[in-house]
Amino acid sequence: MTNWIRFSRRGTPGFGTLEHDTVSEYEGDMFDDPRLTDRRYDINEVKLLVPVLPSKMIAMANNFHALIEKFGMTVPEDPLYFLKANSSLHPTGDPIERPAGYHGKIVFEGELGIVIGRSCKNVPAEQAGSYIFGYTCINDVTSIDLLNKNPSFQQWTRCKAADTFGVLGPTIATGLHAADIRVKTLVDGSERQNYLITDMVFTPTELVSRVSWDMTLLPGDIIACGTSVGVGSLKPGNVVEVQIDGIGTLKNEFAG
Amino acid sequence: MTNWIRFSRRGTPGFGTLEHDTVSEYEGDMFDDPRLTDRRYDINEVKLLVPVLPSKMIAMANNFHALIEKFGMTVPEDPLYFLKANSSLHPTGDPIERPAGYHGKIVFEGELGIVIGRSCKNVPAEQAGSYIFGYTCINDVTSIDLLNKNPSFQQWTRCKAADTFGVLGPTIATGLHAADIRVKTLVDGSERQNYLITDMVFTPTELVSRVSWDMTLLPGDIIACGTSVGVGSLKPGNVVEVQIDGIGTLKNEFAG
Repeated sequence: MTNWIRFSRRGTPGFGTLEHDTVSEYEGDMFDDPRLTDRRYDINEVKLLVPVLPSKMIAMANNFHALIEKFGMTVPEDPLYFLKANSSLHPTGDPIERPAGYHGKIVFEGELGIVIGRSCKNVPAEQAGSYIFGYTCINDVTSIDLLNKNPSFQQWTRCKAADTFGVLGPTIATGLHAADIRVKTLVDGSERQNYLITDMVFTPTELVSRVSWDMTLLPGDIIACGTSVGVGSLKPGNVVEVQIDGIGTLKNEFAG
Repeated sequence: MTNWIRFSRRGTPGFGTLEHDTVSEYEGDMFDDPRLTDRRYDINEVKLLVPVLPSKMIAMANNFHALIEKFGMTVPEDPLYFLKANSSLHPTGDPIERPAGYHGKIVFEGELGIVIGRSCKNVPAEQAGSYIFGYTCINDVTSIDLLNKNPSFQQWTRCKAADTFGVLGPTIATGLHAADIRVKTLVDGSERQNYLITDMVFTPTELVSRVSWDMTLLPGDIIACGTSVGVGSLKPGNVVEVQIDGIGTLKNEFAG
């Protein structure tokens, strides 16, 4: 298992692996034969950035049986998704900010994120696993009062794509066994979400396959798998953590 | 008035301006003090690419009074929008392709596209014009049968984000007077759309302002202004053209 990160050191961005507290810097392309350098840093010498800059971040709605049952929804026939704006991408450690013109409720959603490793299009589910580079933690932050503000047009993009709302990291873990993954979300240290990925309607490989029939997936692209029960709203000063064993803790304060 | 293009010549990408049939190549950043080189090409020596690679492409729904009246919709209080995937971006001249798993109706939508020139956030409408670099033509191609396939989740992203569905170009024109812009769409030479931008619910400067309160707009980002009446479906072999005086003709065959 390897944990990939992107980081900034003395203002210069780089990428590499993190093992215990040691960063090993690589050069080249994370997804295409990256070269190990002899540069090593302590984790405290670097600032973590988002672990990947995707061409697009796709995010699922209604993908967990527990959530669908709780809200009396129907299990969907197809993956239901929207896009997060690239300008919303936000690393661990930096505060989540309220959009200046929005005064309603802002909710956290702890999720598993799939990171694509190789370009793929029209891939059968049984081959889709080979296109998954690894997994990361996602906090799919949402201005939830905007979603149904207009009665005839669901504003998924607007409520999901604000600056700082696409929180991901701290690492991309390779070699995780998807069936064992558990997502926990804590607010100020108190557990709010705790669910297994096995409750998903569409599994990670099914998501990669199904989305790849809709559009080409590129190296670094993210698919956020959707959230389950336990989401809630944030108050100014709250610290929200999304934890997945093997990936790490994605931790951000809500600036309010 | 200047017409900016991106192009490929002998396999190498470049950018510059187009005047009559002459391309003048520039170096650097199209949006930040680009430098004129002494290289000149005939338009027939280059292949046109999409005129910009945006960080995001935002696209409006329900933004023309004529369309809203025709379908008995309500004039929206806020701009209603979704995102096109960057992998959907497609230049003039290349065929529009049907997604392999989709067998329904595919429609064209001729639109005006705004190209952002400078980073902006929370901009008042009266200042928004200074952040507009120029305008381009858009064909917002749509797998329309997917939009309401699920009764509780509008699949705007899925129906709009397929490969080859984000058609834009052929140029970005600076110095156009927005109030005079007329969008025409032709299929196999026959006029199907012909409307003035003055019929918009939210004008270009209002769109830039309002969206900038939702998320940061970056140089090169696109806002497709939405379409008006006259959209229709494409049959294999149809040639669809979106024409705006001063920008040029965005012309693509539908491969079917």
